[in-house]
Amino acid sequence: MEQFVVGIDVGGQTTKIGVVDARGDVLSQVVIRSDIYGADAAAYLDALAEAVKKCIAQAGKEGQIRGIGVGAPNGNYYTGTVAFAPNLAWAAKESVEFAKLLSERMDGIPVSLTNDANAAAVGEMTYGAARGMKNFIMITLGTGVGSGIVINGQVVYGHDGFAGELGHTTAVRNNGRQCNCGKQGCLEAYCSAIGVARTAREWLEMSVEPSLLRECDTISSKDVYDAAKQGDALALRVFEYTGNLLGRSCADFVAFSAPEAIVFFGGLARSKEFLNAPIEKALNDNVLPIWKNKVKIVYSQLKESDAAILGASALAWEL
Amino acid sequence: MEQFVVGIDVGGQTTKIGVVDARGDVLSQVVIRSDIYGADAAAYLDALAEAVKKCIAQAGKEGQIRGIGVGAPNGNYYTGTVAFAPNLAWAAKESVEFAKLLSERMDGIPVSLTNDANAAAVGEMTYGAARGMKNFIMITLGTGVGSGIVINGQVVYGHDGFAGELGHTTAVRNNGRQCNCGKQGCLEAYCSAIGVARTAREWLEMSVEPSLLRECDTISSKDVYDAAKQGDALALRVFEYTGNLLGRSCADFVAFSAPEAIVFFGGLARSKEFLNAPIEKALNDNVLPIWKNKVKIVYSQLKESDAAILGASALAWEL
Repeated sequence: MEQFVVGIDVGGQTTKIGVVDARGDVLSQVVIRSDIYGADAAAYLDALAEAVKKCIAQAGKEGQIRGIGVGAPNGNYYTGTVAFAPNLAWAAKESVEFAKLLSERMDGIPVSLTNDANAAAVGEMTYGAARGMKNFIMITLGTGVGSGIVINGQVVYGHDGFAGELGHTTAVRNNGRQCNCGKQGCLEAYCSAIGVARTAREWLEMSVEPSLLRECDTISSKDVYDAAKQGDALALRVFEYTGNLLGRSCADFVAFSAPEAIVFFGGLARSKEFLNAPIEKALNDNVLPIWKNKVKIVYSQLKESDAAILGASALAWEL
Repeated sequence: MEQFVVGIDVGGQTTKIGVVDARGDVLSQVVIRSDIYGADAAAYLDALAEAVKKCIAQAGKEGQIRGIGVGAPNGNYYTGTVAFAPNLAWAAKESVEFAKLLSERMDGIPVSLTNDANAAAVGEMTYGAARGMKNFIMITLGTGVGSGIVINGQVVYGHDGFAGELGHTTAVRNNGRQCNCGKQGCLEAYCSAIGVARTAREWLEMSVEPSLLRECDTISSKDVYDAAKQGDALALRVFEYTGNLLGRSCADFVAFSAPEAIVFFGGLARSKEFLNAPIEKALNDNVLPIWKNKVKIVYSQLKESDAAILGASALAWEL
């Protein structure tokens, strides 16, 4: 009998669930809130299990589910836990045995779990821009900067399951911005959606240069994108600065694992028309001669709505 | 019949050859010069093959050699070539098919080749400080700074075979020192033996601070070590500065692959009494909380004279 898997993308606000077939088609989808359970992990997991069962029923695939794959912030592949995830109230102060507890609620269907960026990397490798690649680095440019590293066709988990925190490598060594993680100068503090907005706000404060952005009450990365679209000089420079920092950091990542490609994913990656040129320039200016103009820069080809579910579901095929 | 392997360590000045048994004992050793053949790779390889045969004869193991492992600067595991290695005149301007040409001269005994730092990492994993570890980063502090990265028990070669060039990640972003590779601010320009001597010379020029080093004609990293041993304040600060840069860079490497340990190897690593404290402090000050005081800093336990041969020979067992 044909088998199917379930992919679950756990986000700070919503959790998306999908039943997926072997070709990567999403047969049914259910979305629940992640943020209405306070610190009560059991209540969240009860609701999640119910939603997964509903999703399977919608697809008409009861009894045909081979496994469940989950991508979650601070998810650990080795232990199946979600631990100390600042954006998930029910896992902010403790380590939740997510995979075990969900599997129990699903009559023993096996559950595999990893962090969201690793799940996205698996998705890209299985269904997306990195199909056929065995060595690539996936960088997710969203609220934060995440990463999933693939070497020899395998996601790198490291000794403890937490490998691939490239958003917390140091992009600016001296007087770097304070990052949420407690460190200073992290890539994430500059090259996330929040970092882009922060750069724009800082530059607006430090000058009297005219800019469309001065008309905004609060500034988001989307505002910076819209202003750049209209040719706003300051907004364009914000993207150039962001791309330059990203490209320099990517040059160091290339020296580590010599990937075939760097794959960008996430909301901010949609600004590639402004980010791509400075990324490519800074990357190629900062790698050894053997890598100049050799490492591909690519952007996720997965539909945004399906990408995270597909990535998580791809994990489940390995179960 | 018991089998043996040959390990070859190709250095800029000498090439060391050893016959090694399965326990990692070196049964015989031969050393030849690497630097008297000009650009004539064939002449060097002829001399090398002769020396290997002599070494096998000395051990009395003719007909019992399973394979030959070679560690060489700019050695590529995938292609078996040594290409554009600035310190090897016979491979400085071209790509030499080292593995193929040596195997032909050795009656078809298979030859496996990688760069010297990767060979050292394999040696450490098989016989040394990293025994039993599946995830670690080896950093060689010699004339340059090399690295070998092990993930899941496998050396990382990357898409093109050149992964693990951590000496050419950027340690100093702005106004960094010119590196031999053409880039600026590379870790190697600061944390190699040459980098340490350069730091000392720069600081002596920039101040009138008394220092034992002012009595030296030329300053080597060994001079800086000797001065530090005698309590020379400037020399001690040179090591503190060097260790600090190393530790900060290591923090970024940890974010990449979450290793169990970082293993230091090479001549400069013998200054660990001065380097270790600043390395540990800078590392732990610059990693995410999940890794604070968790990543081991260890130093090679292999005998210097055997280490490189053992590392190369360990490769040959995989043939």
